[in-house]
Amino acid sequence: MTVHAPGVVEVVDGRIAHVGPVPEPGALPEPPEGLESPEGPTHRLGGLLMPGLVNAHAHTPMTLVRGAGDGLALQRWLTEAMWPREGRMTPDDVWWGMALGSAEMLAAGVTTSCEMYLFEDAVADAVAVTGGRLVMTPGVLSVLHGDAFGSDGDRLDALAAFHQANHDPSGRLTVGIAPHSAYDLGVGMVARLADLARSLDTVLHVHVAETRDESAALEAEYGRSIVRILADHDVLGGRVLFAHAVWTDDDDIATMAEAGVAVAHCPVSNMKLGSGVAPLVRMLEAGVTVGLGTDGPASNDTLDLWEEVKVAPLLARVDALDPTVLPAAEVLAMATRGGATAVGLDDVGRLEVGAAADFIRVDLDRPSFTPVTEPAELLAHLVWAGTDRSVTDVWVAGQRVVEAGVVQTLDVDRARAEVQQRALRLAAG
Amino acid sequence: MTVHAPGVVEVVDGRIAHVGPVPEPGALPEPPEGLESPEGPTHRLGGLLMPGLVNAHAHTPMTLVRGAGDGLALQRWLTEAMWPREGRMTPDDVWWGMALGSAEMLAAGVTTSCEMYLFEDAVADAVAVTGGRLVMTPGVLSVLHGDAFGSDGDRLDALAAFHQANHDPSGRLTVGIAPHSAYDLGVGMVARLADLARSLDTVLHVHVAETRDESAALEAEYGRSIVRILADHDVLGGRVLFAHAVWTDDDDIATMAEAGVAVAHCPVSNMKLGSGVAPLVRMLEAGVTVGLGTDGPASNDTLDLWEEVKVAPLLARVDALDPTVLPAAEVLAMATRGGATAVGLDDVGRLEVGAAADFIRVDLDRPSFTPVTEPAELLAHLVWAGTDRSVTDVWVAGQRVVEAGVVQTLDVDRARAEVQQRALRLAAG
Repeated sequence: MTVHAPGVVEVVDGRIAHVGPVPEPGALPEPPEGLESPEGPTHRLGGLLMPGLVNAHAHTPMTLVRGAGDGLALQRWLTEAMWPREGRMTPDDVWWGMALGSAEMLAAGVTTSCEMYLFEDAVADAVAVTGGRLVMTPGVLSVLHGDAFGSDGDRLDALAAFHQANHDPSGRLTVGIAPHSAYDLGVGMVARLADLARSLDTVLHVHVAETRDESAALEAEYGRSIVRILADHDVLGGRVLFAHAVWTDDDDIATMAEAGVAVAHCPVSNMKLGSGVAPLVRMLEAGVTVGLGTDGPASNDTLDLWEEVKVAPLLARVDALDPTVLPAAEVLAMATRGGATAVGLDDVGRLEVGAAADFIRVDLDRPSFTPVTEPAELLAHLVWAGTDRSVTDVWVAGQRVVEAGVVQTLDVDRARAEVQQRALRLAAG
Repeated sequence: MTVHAPGVVEVVDGRIAHVGPVPEPGALPEPPEGLESPEGPTHRLGGLLMPGLVNAHAHTPMTLVRGAGDGLALQRWLTEAMWPREGRMTPDDVWWGMALGSAEMLAAGVTTSCEMYLFEDAVADAVAVTGGRLVMTPGVLSVLHGDAFGSDGDRLDALAAFHQANHDPSGRLTVGIAPHSAYDLGVGMVARLADLARSLDTVLHVHVAETRDESAALEAEYGRSIVRILADHDVLGGRVLFAHAVWTDDDDIATMAEAGVAVAHCPVSNMKLGSGVAPLVRMLEAGVTVGLGTDGPASNDTLDLWEEVKVAPLLARVDALDPTVLPAAEVLAMATRGGATAVGLDDVGRLEVGAAADFIRVDLDRPSFTPVTEPAELLAHLVWAGTDRSVTDVWVAGQRVVEAGVVQTLDVDRARAEVQQRALRLAAG
């Protein structure tokens, strides 16, 4: 990881045209509209440009149910608090829930999210307004789509049509496919959706080994681990993204690494729901591509990926009883280019020539970023003290969507009021 | 925990004179100067008054060494990064490091901190300026004070004199005594300082069972656990505050509960340093009074206790693989009145008639606090989504020390510049 202080970033047509140290003052080009002019050493200027964060696993419209049923055991929380409310959601509800959550992410410097949810049109429409980058992976659930292959046909057709109409790697929206899980849909349906994802050359996004019970039940049924089951059913070819992968052992990890499976690690959600500790360090050592995810706001309950940036190494260190694991630079890489690669975007999450111009300005003039006596401390401060509060300005594909802390693309107060009203209706039933 | 919406708080002479629901509009008293007037339901007004947070274990002047040696193993971090810099600190350095950290805490709504550090005069002077509430427990370290009883005499006299001159339970400064630890000072010296603390009727603040190695070494030497050793040496009478208590078992916890020992639980520090998972739930179940602490900013690296508010239940839940432990109200109680009781302040950390008027205003008009469909969700949002950013106004002993997010008592930019300059000098040697 290179720090240019002072440094300069040039943007042309939504992509990065140049990154580097500021040349001699006379040779400095005029800054493009909307970009900060470099005026001095980074830690004196108080501004740092860095890649936007990538939220590799989210169900963001669940802003609508944030806080509901807090503290209930998992099954009661799902059946009494989440599913009844979600069952009442309309596309308009999802639009507002996604819009509010997208604005919340952008304000925190999270420029991309990979969304697993229903109502994919509403989700995509909302993010088209807020200006975020979206990897939309429409969900497939047994309760709605999975009872028989005959009735799924409609959903499979709809997924293919949505992909056909919206997938645009040169723009801000790409489309994958999200079977909820093997325990929900059955392995056969996951394999069928994996075939579809491969035929579309896009991301297959699936919950894997989130809880011990779910993993143990599959293992009891099949006599091998869920990762092995998926490998044996030819699910792991193509671009596959596992959400969670908590209950995976060294053999599973080797299988994932060999197949090129990526993982969205969601430490806050895994802790809040009491799911377990994912073997993050062993996955990284094995060469698995890992990104960070917030999961849904009802199991977190924020969309501020800076919390995952801090909690991921905290959890890994206490799990290993070792303060040397997961250096700051490695964590920042996971939160940016690691996550981007995991969700199928190889040209996002990096300040490099040719990459998408998704970057953020971090205000370093904060007590919790003081002092800086060498560049390594700046990276440490970002990991241990970075928060949504530190982010002042955000660009996606070169568009400045947050300026001086204010989201430019959405009336956030109106969105809050909409979500509040709609949440009351969803709760009332 | 009661929520009055709309509610009113009256302050007289730095103490709370009345708390309750707003009476009929005609009967509402004029709001005291500096207090918000209640204008509507809490979640509509967007403002919530709650007790200020209590940081039960801190070494705040270590803002001066924040980020130094990040990622080194514990022993190298101490000997190469921390101790050389700390050895060069002057009282002026400590004054500025404490002032900056105190301002950082106040801006986050942390109205009280319990400090274990040297240069007690400088620490107390700095907090007298910022306006925070301080429990100063001057440190005793073997390298400076512990080689023989003869040479400690001076330190013991200095502690007693500092207590005599500064301890003021009716004001904002109380004074305890902080032997670093039994492994550093030896059990005999800790017992001698416990005698002194009892004779002064004040808090004994000591690191206990932070790491496995330290705990195992003492157990190997004495044939019993450190808690048992301290009990047998008559350390546990009086008001005793253990920092960390990570490596404690059920017998230890029973001993602590019986003796009335309180614990400062520091989950972020325990994770970052790879120390371990304290048995928080079992301590609470046994009736141990528990507060939350940030520990020093070099092992965290912020002073924002809202992170402990979130991470404490996260860590307890993943450790138990159970999402029902530590309900939101219990966590908020630990962060306020639990911490206050733990550090010897029975009239702090609660919005009750007669208590110190230390309270904060939280802005609820934030995306991450939306929606609220019932009061329990408000408590959940505070725990899961509360951050320094949510705090707009802070009162200590009735004085408004933060107004609209701006610290009123210190030039924070100047303090940052001072800490930056001094940190460069400390790093250079």
